Amino acid sequence: MSELLRARCLVQQCVSARLQVVLPDIQKNILPEFVQIERGAVFFVCFMKDATEADVDKLAKSVLNVRLSQTEDSKSTSVLDLPGDILIIPQACLGGKMKGKMFQYHNNIGKDAGLDFYAKFVDLCKKYAAEHPVWSLNKNLKVLSGTYGIRQVYSTETNGPNMHLIEL
Amino acid sequence: MSELLRARCLVQQCVSARLQVVLPDIQKNILPEFVQIERGAVFFVCFMKDATEADVDKLAKSVLNVRLSQTEDSKSTSVLDLPGDILIIPQACLGGKMKGKMFQYHNNIGKDAGLDFYAKFVDLCKKYAAEHPVWSLNKNLKVLSGTYGIRQVYSTETNGPNMHLIEL
Repeated sequence: MSELLRARCLVQQCVSARLQVVLPDIQKNILPEFVQIERGAVFFVCFMKDATEADVDKLAKSVLNVRLSQTEDSKSTSVLDLPGDILIIPQACLGGKMKGKMFQYHNNIGKDAGLDFYAKFVDLCKKYAAEHPVWSLNKNLKVLSGTYGIRQVYSTETNGPNMHLIEL
Repeated sequence: MSELLRARCLVQQCVSARLQVVLPDIQKNILPEFVQIERGAVFFVCFMKDATEADVDKLAKSVLNVRLSQTEDSKSTSVLDLPGDILIIPQACLGGKMKGKMFQYHNNIGKDAGLDFYAKFVDLCKKYAAEHPVWSLNKNLKVLSGTYGIRQVYSTETNGPNMHLIEL
């Protein structure tokens, strides 16, 4: 990992994916809540302390437009051109660095700025998807996102996760 | 990503994971085959062209011993001390680098050397697990691995994937 890493996104293709967005709390009478997407892509996103607002925009455009999805006839395309569902999951641990047998997170962004950048990233993904000529035509498609700062209880089915890292 | 990256492993925690190890072929009368693990860790592994045999050993020891798993009472521990199942999945696309809207894989290891290193990595993980004082006591535990060079059809359930990257 470069010392100057500013953002990292792990892009995974999926047939379906399900994420818990509200953790249950029996004492507070809070029930668990989940979101689910069908065929499309999952973005695990992490911002580092040197990240800028321009990086948030650049990362959103990159992950939406990079050709990592596959059409039925095996052609490479973007998730917007597929068109497919999108699930965004905050994943700060992607910014960690192994030191001995433990991970350290010295270069991760602070929690408040991290939430701000994460929320902006989600908003930009929704905006660019809604503006896209192919994606926007299908009213059943979704851009969903996880709750920042909680445990990301996650399940997925894939036809090959095709894991790729986009780093700024 | 550093220009000198030699190996990359994405470590994901899981409650269960399932991987296709034989793709079906109707014309050849070949049926699909799957392997499945229960609670433990999944290693998505990728070697680059500068990787050495020493790196394979170092990576195996690192992923097995790094404390990224959680005990029932939320303490960090290694997958061997947990102890948990292990599923190893070859994932060459983790070595890719985005260029415009496409990914390039110029620094990935060649296919033959990649298969050799992958097979050695799997063997070392099995060996070190079998030698581990805690892990080896539980005869139900498994180290399973995907088939190199095929599409990795993969499903998982997690209680938080806790995605971490180990890079050499």
